[in-house]
Amino acid sequence: MEWDEAAAQQRAQKSLTQGGELESWSLAVKDIIDIAGVPTRCNADFIPANPAPKDAAIVTSLMDQGAFIAAKAVTTIFAYFDPGPTRNPWNLQHTPGGSSSGSAAAVACGMVRLALGSQTVASVNRPASYCGVVGFKPTYGRLPTEGVFPFSPTVDTLGTFTRNVADVQTVWKALTTESAFRQPSQLNIAVVTDQGGEPPEPAMLNEIQTVTTQLKAAGHQLTPLTLDPVFQQAHKNHRDLISYEAAQVHADLFARHKSDYTSKLRELIQHGQSVRPAQLERILAHRMKSMEILAGYLENHDLLLSPSAPGPAPATLKATGNPRMSLLWTYTGFPTLTLPASLTEARLPLGIQLVGRRGADRELLAAGAMVEEVLGFNKQPSLSASQ
Amino acid sequence: MEWDEAAAQQRAQKSLTQGGELESWSLAVKDIIDIAGVPTRCNADFIPANPAPKDAAIVTSLMDQGAFIAAKAVTTIFAYFDPGPTRNPWNLQHTPGGSSSGSAAAVACGMVRLALGSQTVASVNRPASYCGVVGFKPTYGRLPTEGVFPFSPTVDTLGTFTRNVADVQTVWKALTTESAFRQPSQLNIAVVTDQGGEPPEPAMLNEIQTVTTQLKAAGHQLTPLTLDPVFQQAHKNHRDLISYEAAQVHADLFARHKSDYTSKLRELIQHGQSVRPAQLERILAHRMKSMEILAGYLENHDLLLSPSAPGPAPATLKATGNPRMSLLWTYTGFPTLTLPASLTEARLPLGIQLVGRRGADRELLAAGAMVEEVLGFNKQPSLSASQ
Repeated sequence: MEWDEAAAQQRAQKSLTQGGELESWSLAVKDIIDIAGVPTRCNADFIPANPAPKDAAIVTSLMDQGAFIAAKAVTTIFAYFDPGPTRNPWNLQHTPGGSSSGSAAAVACGMVRLALGSQTVASVNRPASYCGVVGFKPTYGRLPTEGVFPFSPTVDTLGTFTRNVADVQTVWKALTTESAFRQPSQLNIAVVTDQGGEPPEPAMLNEIQTVTTQLKAAGHQLTPLTLDPVFQQAHKNHRDLISYEAAQVHADLFARHKSDYTSKLRELIQHGQSVRPAQLERILAHRMKSMEILAGYLENHDLLLSPSAPGPAPATLKATGNPRMSLLWTYTGFPTLTLPASLTEARLPLGIQLVGRRGADRELLAAGAMVEEVLGFNKQPSLSASQ
Repeated sequence: MEWDEAAAQQRAQKSLTQGGELESWSLAVKDIIDIAGVPTRCNADFIPANPAPKDAAIVTSLMDQGAFIAAKAVTTIFAYFDPGPTRNPWNLQHTPGGSSSGSAAAVACGMVRLALGSQTVASVNRPASYCGVVGFKPTYGRLPTEGVFPFSPTVDTLGTFTRNVADVQTVWKALTTESAFRQPSQLNIAVVTDQGGEPPEPAMLNEIQTVTTQLKAAGHQLTPLTLDPVFQQAHKNHRDLISYEAAQVHADLFARHKSDYTSKLRELIQHGQSVRPAQLERILAHRMKSMEILAGYLENHDLLLSPSAPGPAPATLKATGNPRMSLLWTYTGFPTLTLPASLTEARLPLGIQLVGRRGADRELLAAGAMVEEVLGFNKQPSLSASQ
């Protein structure tokens, strides 16, 4: 990757002296997000390598608070399913997840304190779960997408990777000035394991059971929740929606470079070209209906708790795992927080996912800090950078 | 209004000493937004007057930066069209606009430096235009709606009133940490006067022409833009959409208090109850199509420029004016900035509206500062509080 070494050093130097809530925080930036002077490559070598004219808004904000850019982080190609070279620091034969692969792995092995990612289906929560770190996807729209290469603008959401909830609270305060919020001492949590499609793997089902028991023992109230059957349709609808938008985003590039596209993304875009207005109408109405029903659940509960992924990171470097456990919350734009909960016998992390009310991100983080304390996860991959 | 005087003084005192980017800024809060310990009344005296349990997230953030709450500000009933007692400080026989009536008027006559409002159709831009102040409605979703009484969650957006763009830039930085952004010296602006429905009044059409000439003289590039015919349908669709959501938001309250509702809001809710799924499907797809087309315009132009209202504030206290000049941008969630441009012969303000790219709020504000300088508006109503 082209990189203006001198400029980068100058900026890092500035961060060490300027103060701010993120003073001296090292930052990795998913390579769909612009850094001034550095080409944004999206892991697609056929697009022009022109230096970005300016920093993305989110990058400016983090740097203004003292963070310095330590690296660009590998993304899957155009943030879809084709992996880059990144591996899972817990086991190098396993995927780190995607599409924010480099971001999750860099935080997991201590290369950086903070990484930026983005999510259109499960690209923050799944890699966070696979890599044993905290992944936060705020409410749709809360963070600025200026200077970020789009996938599906109706659902694309920026998110963060950190080692713990306190760090993401600091980042959230630095980005939004929303200070931490005191939750009631007892959380009322609805547990959602079945999200339609294949159920989670036994290890994950077992983990959810363990976490439920732990949280009950800590005085919280947990009740199982069966999702309305309306959500069954979300999986197909979400794919149709994002393929429709991806086909628009890529229209020009795809016309010129069709053969350069990977087969998965080509298939998605071609599928998107076939989505008809009548389908789109039904999808968007279904999406609104789903949002209403979720909002209803969250009137009765402080949080939903679900798996972050169907199980631990699969033993492959050719795929990034199944996104189905995060899809509903991305489709509907609700904020989610992935917390590492435990390790499997094979020493692979399992993450759980908390879902909060739209627009109430600080509440979700405050609740997350309480849940994190109960989970007590404090492991690191042996590959960790010394720090 | 109930008000804990001692607590309010204590909080104001804190703001004078704690520092922050908004140190000692006086703040008025539209009365659909929660302040801890104060009942949120929505100008509807039949709803329970229970003190809000905590500050809305936006209020916490502003106070954390040093702002102090000087007042709650009058809203139209449930932020729809039925006015409260507020009048236009430029002429007391004219409406201040709505629904953020008190917020706009309080800034216009110098009672506060900053006021919070919200917009579901035109409730920031129209009162800003009528009252001769700067109104900013950021991209949908950027500001947190936690602790805000909803109208139509799919489009509800918080916004601000200030006396100038520099102040809103300071607020934006305080809320998002996004620092000001340097625009190219020449802006490429598309001028949109016809937004479907009745055209603006001659005074406003004339003002847009004057502003166009001023901006050209200052070296900017302005081209007229005729909106795609698809936008004609937006006016009906937006009403159907917000009525559908309002019917849901008010379901319980309306069932119990139907006769307490004003006729306008009752009509809207009853209309919303009649919106069928098939209609909603078409509306949401039309909305997405409209967003795509607007995004296309803003690939070719830095900004759109349009009237903020059809003309100056009408001479009535029984209505709040026509929202049609802001409807398209609310329907599609694009950020808008109203700037006072001039006074009519009758000394009533005329505002112009700038529309920016979704998610690129800091760019819109930077461009707004440039346009503001060209406009050179520096008038105040004779009713101004001395300050």
